[in-house]
Amino acid sequence: MRIKTDPNRPIGVFDSGLGGLTVVKELFRQLPKESVVYFGDTARVPYGTKSPEAIIRFSQENVTILKQYQVKMIVIACNTSSSFALPALRQQFDLPVVGVIGPGAKKAVQVTRNGRIGVIATAATINSGQYAKTIKKLQPSIKVFGQKCPLFVPLIEEGWTGKEVSRQIAQEYLRPFKKARIDTLILGCTHYPLLKPVLRQVMGEGVMLVDSAQSVVEEVKELLQNTNCARQSQSPPARRFLVSDEPRHFHRLAKRFLGFPMKNVKRCYV
Amino acid sequence: MRIKTDPNRPIGVFDSGLGGLTVVKELFRQLPKESVVYFGDTARVPYGTKSPEAIIRFSQENVTILKQYQVKMIVIACNTSSSFALPALRQQFDLPVVGVIGPGAKKAVQVTRNGRIGVIATAATINSGQYAKTIKKLQPSIKVFGQKCPLFVPLIEEGWTGKEVSRQIAQEYLRPFKKARIDTLILGCTHYPLLKPVLRQVMGEGVMLVDSAQSVVEEVKELLQNTNCARQSQSPPARRFLVSDEPRHFHRLAKRFLGFPMKNVKRCYV
Repeated sequence: MRIKTDPNRPIGVFDSGLGGLTVVKELFRQLPKESVVYFGDTARVPYGTKSPEAIIRFSQENVTILKQYQVKMIVIACNTSSSFALPALRQQFDLPVVGVIGPGAKKAVQVTRNGRIGVIATAATINSGQYAKTIKKLQPSIKVFGQKCPLFVPLIEEGWTGKEVSRQIAQEYLRPFKKARIDTLILGCTHYPLLKPVLRQVMGEGVMLVDSAQSVVEEVKELLQNTNCARQSQSPPARRFLVSDEPRHFHRLAKRFLGFPMKNVKRCYV
Repeated sequence: MRIKTDPNRPIGVFDSGLGGLTVVKELFRQLPKESVVYFGDTARVPYGTKSPEAIIRFSQENVTILKQYQVKMIVIACNTSSSFALPALRQQFDLPVVGVIGPGAKKAVQVTRNGRIGVIATAATINSGQYAKTIKKLQPSIKVFGQKCPLFVPLIEEGWTGKEVSRQIAQEYLRPFKKARIDTLILGCTHYPLLKPVLRQVMGEGVMLVDSAQSVVEEVKELLQNTNCARQSQSPPARRFLVSDEPRHFHRLAKRFLGFPMKNVKRCYV
């Protein structure tokens, strides 16, 4: 993998909608000097209930948009898209592409003690089996248990993470993991960091939560260092946000994900 | 409004995804001789969280697809699309277009005794204020109370309508209606008929549920009779289903909405 372009160019990040902002938040925290262009496909969100073919096609279109902003690399800040589109994107585009599955899987393998890992994600991500495949490649003896949680994203976007029903729904989804005696749980959807308090409460302190948003940024940091492509410029980094639907709704919800209000949200048709 | 085409042509129905199948089920029941072509925009579902501009653009594209099947009229089997796109579609296409809002509003005005009507729907439908406007035009003294219920569609698609959490979520959403002492509740989303047992349990027998899927088919029936355009042919009617994403997932869920398995599901790119 090589980065041919100017290190001062921005990192391109995309997601099906809002969730990828948890990755952006980590990027700002761990790599505050980097410029970032984020694209959220809010006109076609969510991807987690769509077919592999649609997910790949949408992802290709998203990278084409980000390329117009001269990005030096692509971060797929969406587990569903990472599960299906990563090979196609690496093949089609002459840019380094990093997805969230690999880093999340690697981290989980590092932290598990009993070799029993749970994964929560969208239906599409679980059906892809991509986390299990990646973990098995790293450590074939590990047991992986997957659970699709389609109600988590709407619960988070409704702002109901503090309500009793969220705990009950989490209990329902996570019950099989208790039986399976996992000691590590991968948050396999970039929305889920907002549910951490509930997940921690239901699973108990003995279970490590692996946040794929954090892990992917550690990998980006490594890649930039290894390829000597960290931003050099001392001027303030550029931070742009693009969405495929009208920006107002995105703008309102985004604060919850980023932790602070954003500027510069622009509409970009797909 | 006039229908210029052959009465034996099919009725075109579209929805953002699956929900419109509750309308199709009613069409099959009330108008069993009619041919029907259904289009579900499963690649871009849902519409209820998107902007008016996106909803109108998607709806126009959906009708363009249905026109290729020589439909004699269009039924918008989606409350969100009916709220925003009806005037644009009537202006752009030389076909009768019937939406779900008008018939649902009319029915509610007919059945309310105390003049206090509640509406549950997607965020976009509630924000449009379209039910309130339509009801006020029919009967200005009626009080209308709206409540967006973004968790209902994912709960229904998850198949959790029989679970305790569904009742709790319904209780949370419907609480303002109890205070408002409504006697009529409009199900302002074509998914919601699948939640009728829960809604009835929470609201009690004293509150009439108005199913916009039923009401719109009564209006279609009237229109076909009034314009002398009911299908004449004695051959079995054609029933086609088109979707914009891969048909498998649609096929699996569709049975729950239609009550029987469907044949003839075809992919149609948007």
